[in-house]
Amino acid sequence: MADTYDFGLVGLGVMGRNFILNVADNGFTAFGNDLDEEKVGALIKEGGDTDKVNASTDVKAFVSALTTPRKIMLLVPAGKVVDIVIESLLPHLDKGDIIIDGGNSFFTDTDRREAYLKEKGINFFGAGVSGGAKGARRGPSIMPGGSREAYQHVKPIFEAVSAKYKGEPCVAYLGPKSAGNYVKMVHNGIEYGLMQLTSEIYDLLKKAGGLSNAELHQTFGQWNEGRLQSFLVEITSEIFEQKDDLGDGELVDKILDKAKQKGTGKWTSQNAMDLGIPVPTIDVAVSMRELSALKEERVKADDLYDRPTPKTVDKAEFISKAEQALYFAFIITYAQGMHQLADASKEYGYELELGEIAKIWRAGCIIRAALLADITDAYQANEKLENLLLSPSFVEKVKETVGAAREMTAYGALNGIPLAGLSNALTYFDAYTSSRLPLNLIQAQRDYFGSHTYERVDRDGIFHTEWEDN
Amino acid sequence: MADTYDFGLVGLGVMGRNFILNVADNGFTAFGNDLDEEKVGALIKEGGDTDKVNASTDVKAFVSALTTPRKIMLLVPAGKVVDIVIESLLPHLDKGDIIIDGGNSFFTDTDRREAYLKEKGINFFGAGVSGGAKGARRGPSIMPGGSREAYQHVKPIFEAVSAKYKGEPCVAYLGPKSAGNYVKMVHNGIEYGLMQLTSEIYDLLKKAGGLSNAELHQTFGQWNEGRLQSFLVEITSEIFEQKDDLGDGELVDKILDKAKQKGTGKWTSQNAMDLGIPVPTIDVAVSMRELSALKEERVKADDLYDRPTPKTVDKAEFISKAEQALYFAFIITYAQGMHQLADASKEYGYELELGEIAKIWRAGCIIRAALLADITDAYQANEKLENLLLSPSFVEKVKETVGAAREMTAYGALNGIPLAGLSNALTYFDAYTSSRLPLNLIQAQRDYFGSHTYERVDRDGIFHTEWEDN
Repeated sequence: MADTYDFGLVGLGVMGRNFILNVADNGFTAFGNDLDEEKVGALIKEGGDTDKVNASTDVKAFVSALTTPRKIMLLVPAGKVVDIVIESLLPHLDKGDIIIDGGNSFFTDTDRREAYLKEKGINFFGAGVSGGAKGARRGPSIMPGGSREAYQHVKPIFEAVSAKYKGEPCVAYLGPKSAGNYVKMVHNGIEYGLMQLTSEIYDLLKKAGGLSNAELHQTFGQWNEGRLQSFLVEITSEIFEQKDDLGDGELVDKILDKAKQKGTGKWTSQNAMDLGIPVPTIDVAVSMRELSALKEERVKADDLYDRPTPKTVDKAEFISKAEQALYFAFIITYAQGMHQLADASKEYGYELELGEIAKIWRAGCIIRAALLADITDAYQANEKLENLLLSPSFVEKVKETVGAAREMTAYGALNGIPLAGLSNALTYFDAYTSSRLPLNLIQAQRDYFGSHTYERVDRDGIFHTEWEDN
Repeated sequence: MADTYDFGLVGLGVMGRNFILNVADNGFTAFGNDLDEEKVGALIKEGGDTDKVNASTDVKAFVSALTTPRKIMLLVPAGKVVDIVIESLLPHLDKGDIIIDGGNSFFTDTDRREAYLKEKGINFFGAGVSGGAKGARRGPSIMPGGSREAYQHVKPIFEAVSAKYKGEPCVAYLGPKSAGNYVKMVHNGIEYGLMQLTSEIYDLLKKAGGLSNAELHQTFGQWNEGRLQSFLVEITSEIFEQKDDLGDGELVDKILDKAKQKGTGKWTSQNAMDLGIPVPTIDVAVSMRELSALKEERVKADDLYDRPTPKTVDKAEFISKAEQALYFAFIITYAQGMHQLADASKEYGYELELGEIAKIWRAGCIIRAALLADITDAYQANEKLENLLLSPSFVEKVKETVGAAREMTAYGALNGIPLAGLSNALTYFDAYTSSRLPLNLIQAQRDYFGSHTYERVDRDGIFHTEWEDN
């Protein structure tokens, strides 16, 4: 077999197959590899009308079919499989070859692999890919991190296959080492937050607003025409229209309310805590998925307690306020995620450009939204912006909508509708914008019982008091 | 030196010195060790009026002064120091000797040390100690985990020195391996939650209720006479009375609102996420400490936004509702922590008895509270209780107070007072007691963009839909 293929891809599941077909559509030749003969056969069949696509179960044949420096992307499950695939490729590679892990690997695994492969002269990239199966086929957002020099070899292909926002490719070199995986992890954390928020607003509109699925479809559809325009709002609208093919009515009502997770949201929260950066809307999105999984306990508990009957509302006004609250909470969720990225960049030496990241999220990925154009502008106007809430254009957006967020949060609290994401967005906002918080009391308590010391507002230094115990 | 001392202790900081004096007060002889000559001298001087206390900087002299099996407690900073001390002791120990780590070591470190020392025939205990410096002196709550057989040698001393609740010692063998450190970690997570909640209620009473420090002192003092009776409410009352010795007025107003943390609350949250157990009140207590540390950003942000002027309230009624809300949120915080312990017990094989744990928290420790007697009763009535919210006696307590928690949460949301812990307690309650949550939408979204499949409410199985994309 001649070394005539531009791009190699290991793992021919739906994502991998779609990614290869996307590469071929864009004029590059691509070679696939998978242990599963059926998957190899399926790809050859699907790409068979061109001479651009080929595939093999044989690793050696696969590697030797690629032009050097080889560009080999892995779309396999995160974890041990990645290490196994790397080991299977290694004996056949040459120095300067490039391996790109396109999965949701934990960022410290990527750092470990990058260091290990660097010793062998192989370039390793962690490149988050977002957009689901359709994105892989039609154009995903790609978040690569690794060697800046080696990226030049990958760049033409990634720029061609990625989603485009007004002609600009949704891919950019993000930084060294695990920068790409890290950014994708936080992308997913934000995604958890936005999904939790849409589910809460759905709950509110349904239980308090009394909206039918048809009205929910229409409402989210209208919102998607405005400032809330986003992939998640768009598909939410479509979801409410989907008929149940196993019964009457809409499918959404038949889906069990136990949300699963694959870990990236959890990692975002856990790592934010290591960094000391508050991301409470993301944290609670993780908690609510966990709570949803406790279905049996919830059913028991429901029997033991009464729930308030939601107070009647003016439907049109309620929908308008829900829109404002959702917009407010979306902004806060992005603000938390971007804040985490800013801090991680310093901690891990990623040298991230937040404006570039917002830019490549404007299309292709799951959290794409009209808001990301505004976020891009905010960071391009001020590269050193510490938090989106400090950007003048966002101050305006937030001021316009925070009132409705207050009312909706209060409504949920009074009427027994758990708006966990929204309340955390609001308390985060109220705390972040408070020059004085009551945590002086916590410092007093800590010094009282543990002699942990405190600082003062009126002079420098570290103080300890022998508290009087009456 | 003769082997005549019952108990050895390494690390003669304030906790260690106090613990030794406590041991001696209870009729046992104790020998201290520290590298610092001054600390050794200070202990000998302080314990010098008895022949019960001695100390040395020399490790060999220290070890050989102890009766076998030796019982050596470490009260040194968590981390590498523990390993260094263990290595320094090892050459002088005999099989069957017992080392007890009394610090806040991370539980997996304890597991590692326990396995390492077991190979050498040495028993290792992780024993959380709570109560601060005063607790160490007068009677702490002690949470030991390790070998059940070896515990018999330590038991008489620990039972003598521990706090007593109506005569019952606040110490019990909790389980194998790191059970003791794990329980102490969750204790501290609960502590974070309770402290955050008291700080929020302080904020509310001050900003909305207009209470002076004298009134706050009085209010928390009165609460401490009732169902909210607890160490933290008690010291909160005392804190508001403490005069500033460097200026006018009360010290609390001069303390900087940047709360520090030593990691145990963060570990609780991070590990709860690994277990998949929701503890959002604890999570947000961690987040709020982080937010408090961002003082400079908060000052900037405060300038950019307006804050609502808190609506006038009826003071007496407001104080009464604040008390109910705090009681409600305390219950929820304990419920979350106990839930985490129940799950960790299964996951890590600790075989924890939650009733025993609540029992030894009734006195001595930082989270001691009248509520812990009720929690003890609830778990003694039903060892398999999945969550405190399912216990009949707690159903009553919660029903009585949740209305006020709703009103206070709504008040905070509408008036710009960030009640993050309270809102998370309420949304946790509302979600936990909902047989149906809106997370069916999240499962629909996940299946839509990622083919992640879903379950149905009306039949078993795993389903996937090819969603219509209009």
